[in-house]
Amino acid sequence: ERGRSLILQAHVDVVPPGPTDMWTHPPFAPVIDGDWLYGRGGADMKAGHAANIFALDALRRIGLKPAATIYIQSVVEEESTGNGALMTHLRGYRADAALIPEPEDEKLVRANVGVLWFQVQVRGVPVHVREMGEGANAIDAAYRLIGELRRLEAEWNAAKTGREHFEREEHPINLNIGRIEGGDWASSVPAWCTLQCRISIYPGQSAEAAARELEERISHFARNDRFLANLPPSVTFNGFRAEGYTLEPGSEAEKVLGRAHRAATGADLQSFMTAGYLDTRVHALYDKIPALCYGPYSQGIHAFDERVSLASVKRITGTIALFIAEWCGTEAIALC
Amino acid sequence: ERGRSLILQAHVDVVPPGPTDMWTHPPFAPVIDGDWLYGRGGADMKAGHAANIFALDALRRIGLKPAATIYIQSVVEEESTGNGALMTHLRGYRADAALIPEPEDEKLVRANVGVLWFQVQVRGVPVHVREMGEGANAIDAAYRLIGELRRLEAEWNAAKTGREHFEREEHPINLNIGRIEGGDWASSVPAWCTLQCRISIYPGQSAEAAARELEERISHFARNDRFLANLPPSVTFNGFRAEGYTLEPGSEAEKVLGRAHRAATGADLQSFMTAGYLDTRVHALYDKIPALCYGPYSQGIHAFDERVSLASVKRITGTIALFIAEWCGTEAIALC
Repeated sequence: ERGRSLILQAHVDVVPPGPTDMWTHPPFAPVIDGDWLYGRGGADMKAGHAANIFALDALRRIGLKPAATIYIQSVVEEESTGNGALMTHLRGYRADAALIPEPEDEKLVRANVGVLWFQVQVRGVPVHVREMGEGANAIDAAYRLIGELRRLEAEWNAAKTGREHFEREEHPINLNIGRIEGGDWASSVPAWCTLQCRISIYPGQSAEAAARELEERISHFARNDRFLANLPPSVTFNGFRAEGYTLEPGSEAEKVLGRAHRAATGADLQSFMTAGYLDTRVHALYDKIPALCYGPYSQGIHAFDERVSLASVKRITGTIALFIAEWCGTEAIALC
Repeated sequence: ERGRSLILQAHVDVVPPGPTDMWTHPPFAPVIDGDWLYGRGGADMKAGHAANIFALDALRRIGLKPAATIYIQSVVEEESTGNGALMTHLRGYRADAALIPEPEDEKLVRANVGVLWFQVQVRGVPVHVREMGEGANAIDAAYRLIGELRRLEAEWNAAKTGREHFEREEHPINLNIGRIEGGDWASSVPAWCTLQCRISIYPGQSAEAAARELEERISHFARNDRFLANLPPSVTFNGFRAEGYTLEPGSEAEKVLGRAHRAATGADLQSFMTAGYLDTRVHALYDKIPALCYGPYSQGIHAFDERVSLASVKRITGTIALFIAEWCGTEAIALC
């Protein structure tokens, strides 16, 4: 091979649509309205997946093919564990750089948080509602526990000081209580409540240590709560246990992407910190290669009326094609 | 007919068992351990249902039958709407008194709250967790709303002053948030949260007026909440809309029950206020007859390890048999 090899990756899983009547169009019946393509997973990230392939089509149309191996990777579980991307590493796929066109508003991700998922189960002995005591039920206890987790979140946010790419963000660390379910009957005091949670950590922070801190914090709080002390909440790490990464400036791959972006869009490439999980962490942390996350304009990802700008998808496709041309080099396709 | 007629009623529905691994024995496989019969619905209220029938068996064994009509009524939905008992009224069944042997620890219910069920649905537009703002999600908003409902509960409890049978109770009015469900995904900001709630009202208080007060309170709170103001919560009254009652002392039926109780147990009949819904309200409020709620000792109703004292069921059966004998009068069963 003459050129440098490249991984072009995208994930095919999507987050649930939520209540479908909150959508302008049905979430899984894509609709184009002006420049926007609406639909769950259109922006996050079928658009980028398509752009990866369109870029190769564009080169072929002008009689060129890459002068090095390109791996087109389609992975699962970017929205829950990151294990799909991780498997590409464990199976031994390697290249000189990786590009993942997540919907990043035509900017390059400079730094990215790690993410942990955890489930907290609160249980306790209920009584008839006529005998209930103040707060002695699983739903109220779960909310007290959420309060403690919010205090932990505030402490982790305060620890942004001195962390490049994070200290100027107002709230770089987000705790999300994404799902709650508890109790069985309006007239029975709730005996159980389960929380599905997500919290982020800084690059360089150990996911294992963060998990231990969460467990100890919950355990300590429960010991001092009259209701929770009887039956300590159980904590299960049931998804992401992923660490963050920083894309160190100055790599050749970033320079090539910057030139491609300027040629395709007419603007300088901006970089920024993202506060959500990204599969590029696998390539940055474990493949130890330049891992570029850069993709189209979008609105409403993980929300209602998710949409992607089609003009932006075209620009991104141009950037990717030019990136391939310079990074991998090109060869003429033999005429048949 | 020579004697006075009587309704002997019981309900056959039960509340859900909750997590079955919190039970010592499977909830629907009854177990007798010493004096206790364990199982969901044993105390609340198959025991009383059986006692109603056992009392007639006891009279028959000594060659007697009631000298007036006895209606043995088996009703549904005592745990959710009270509509089963209400149908006995609407279908025109009438008698001179009603007795319902709910598990009341061998005491007579003197006063009883009304109960309202209501569902609150909170919805809002979520965003990716990386963009979330403080509290701008449906689960946090639902909790703020619970806080407002707790303030309303405190006000209703403060209104106990001057209400006989209630003002000496520490907390006569209970709000129960019995079930909560919200959100779809740990990494999506929750767009919806639904609460199943139950609150009680004083006898003499209009269920309709209480429902309006709840609606207005929720609506007013939502207008002043940044997240809830965008999409006001919907309130649905989806179960009990029942008013409370007081059993005025001095009725002939109560005197007869007092004598029967003393003869069966050796003790004076105590009366008390109960803070949960009872079907006797139908007979008190709409049939306008003496409505006696009196039944066996129990523990753990609406909770785990629900159990009823078998010795108490026998005593109660004796009381009911003696009550029938005096209230309805008896006749010798003709020998075949």
